[in-house]
Amino acid sequence: MSAHRRSDAPQPSRDRAELYIERGFEQTTVAEIAKRAGLTERTFFRYFADKREVLFAGAGSLQDFLVGTLASAPDSAAPIDAVALALEAAGALLQERREYARQRQAVIAANAELRERELIKLASLGSAMAEVLRRRGVRDPAASLSAEAGMAVFRIAFERWINESGQRDLPQCIRESLGELKAVTAGK
Amino acid sequence: MSAHRRSDAPQPSRDRAELYIERGFEQTTVAEIAKRAGLTERTFFRYFADKREVLFAGAGSLQDFLVGTLASAPDSAAPIDAVALALEAAGALLQERREYARQRQAVIAANAELRERELIKLASLGSAMAEVLRRRGVRDPAASLSAEAGMAVFRIAFERWINESGQRDLPQCIRESLGELKAVTAGK
Repeated sequence: MSAHRRSDAPQPSRDRAELYIERGFEQTTVAEIAKRAGLTERTFFRYFADKREVLFAGAGSLQDFLVGTLASAPDSAAPIDAVALALEAAGALLQERREYARQRQAVIAANAELRERELIKLASLGSAMAEVLRRRGVRDPAASLSAEAGMAVFRIAFERWINESGQRDLPQCIRESLGELKAVTAGK
Repeated sequence: MSAHRRSDAPQPSRDRAELYIERGFEQTTVAEIAKRAGLTERTFFRYFADKREVLFAGAGSLQDFLVGTLASAPDSAAPIDAVALALEAAGALLQERREYARQRQAVIAANAELRERELIKLASLGSAMAEVLRRRGVRDPAASLSAEAGMAVFRIAFERWINESGQRDLPQCIRESLGELKAVTAGK
């Protein structure tokens, strides 16, 4: 899945995160991850700022994908719908890796520092989308609110998707979650 | 402002965070903060898990206040409006300390680890409010979406409030931000 692979990284992030999934985050050393990926420790730190970043190696590509998709959304789309379309497109990519997503999320949920790092990455996705909306002529606070509300929709859809037994795919969960947000903010 | 003071802490968080505001977070040691607050280092760590927590000493009380206010909102209020009412009430308390809020936010913005910690605290407020909504009979995902959307409204209102020269108070910024979210999700 190219949108989730760093173009300059030697191996897909899945292979490196594997040890965290097998043994747990705390129990795995950088040396072990580097070895599994065929890297020296020194090379490891050329690709990752710290041990946590291994689990978020795809975040930059995901952000680029969202930004690109949002930038090319039809001008006629309302900001919140343009954001949702971009998130659905990203959801279609993530859909191909549901089992990995589920295992990775369990690793993150078990560690406070990983949860912090995840929140930073999600906040960054929201800021990047708000910036695209501004470039599309949407003013603030509508730009920020559309992006932030979109991220809330995504987070809740993602959680349902990995916790359910797979009846609905992620793009469908995102569409439903957006529909529910619209109902909720209409006071229903 | 009692809602932002730990009942068991010897001094208001403002006094302890003072050194971060004066010198910066990285430049301040735990020993220095403890001394300023009249604590030993050992006592300091009875109150705070780490150096970052000093800036978030009021988070627990704020959460209790939000939870209590939301729990006692009129049954007739739609979930998103009940959440907004609780946030406005908290906003009225924060309003009294605008200059401190502005300086504290500058300290947080300048440090990645503090930004991460802040996101965790905000996520915790959102989860706590979602839980209250569930207890009030709101189903998921409406409960989570109302709480998360409310937190997005709050974050954006807070940012406007501290960045503006003070024409509008925080509760007013929250009301306006909610109105804008409603317009945005209605596709306007």
